[in-house]
Amino acid sequence: MHIREATEKDFDAIWPIFKEVVSAGETYAYPQETTKDEALKLWMQLPQKTFVIEEDNQILGTYYIKTNQSGPGSHVCNCGYMVSSKARGKGLATDMCEHSQQVAVGLGYKAMQFNFVAASNAGAIRLWNKLGFETVGCLPKAFNHPDLGYIDALVMYKWLQT
Amino acid sequence: MHIREATEKDFDAIWPIFKEVVSAGETYAYPQETTKDEALKLWMQLPQKTFVIEEDNQILGTYYIKTNQSGPGSHVCNCGYMVSSKARGKGLATDMCEHSQQVAVGLGYKAMQFNFVAASNAGAIRLWNKLGFETVGCLPKAFNHPDLGYIDALVMYKWLQT
Repeated sequence: MHIREATEKDFDAIWPIFKEVVSAGETYAYPQETTKDEALKLWMQLPQKTFVIEEDNQILGTYYIKTNQSGPGSHVCNCGYMVSSKARGKGLATDMCEHSQQVAVGLGYKAMQFNFVAASNAGAIRLWNKLGFETVGCLPKAFNHPDLGYIDALVMYKWLQT
Repeated sequence: MHIREATEKDFDAIWPIFKEVVSAGETYAYPQETTKDEALKLWMQLPQKTFVIEEDNQILGTYYIKTNQSGPGSHVCNCGYMVSSKARGKGLATDMCEHSQQVAVGLGYKAMQFNFVAASNAGAIRLWNKLGFETVGCLPKAFNHPDLGYIDALVMYKWLQT
């Protein structure tokens, strides 16, 4: 398993993962019908950096890191992680989240925030808790889930060791 | 006192208010040195709509409304309000916040969220509470205040009557 910074050439391999995750509408605050061009902008151009995780030269997951709020909030970063359905349960999200915390510290960030974790996403919440993130907010009915309707979204946060 | 939608021609009158508020660095997640061009983009071009509040044809305050999260979060809006220092204490923020809630409902939003309220901003917190917003999150040390250092930021939220 190898994590490296992505280039735009990697986007053809990232796009099927993005599309699979986002079209389900269950986890990310992107429209389910987000196009490939929009995804490229959201995942690779707007963030500060984007990474991929590979096995045998195959991209199985990806994450971005960006500043969460500018000005007085610019010491806090935000990350998003996606894993291909064919590679779930292998610890890739853990690997990427740990990697991203090191990258964050290297970039000078002091904390990491997840703004919008669907309360139904128990696997992610359990994982972020295990990796030291606390639930610091609960947004009532802020997430419109395709099956469950309006459910809560959590805000999760970790002050990073520096 | 009159609230109306702003046009870009109003920005010359909005800019001194924006600059005064943002250069203080105490309330908004914009860099203190934000330029006029950047402010135009942030306050008038990226949001869905921008309004001004006037008295005797003089612009004394302004607010924007925009979608807070896209896709599954797109039923929740975000607003930001600014009042000129020479017009504080006259209830303009209250007027604008109440107006914005009506606008939000008209645009189809179901809730309103403030993402990043400095915990030191007691006047704003008291006002949002009075207007029905609840503190639903507290981001530890997420706001780098010019005098107070790293202080908490609050997330405030209101489900709108529709």
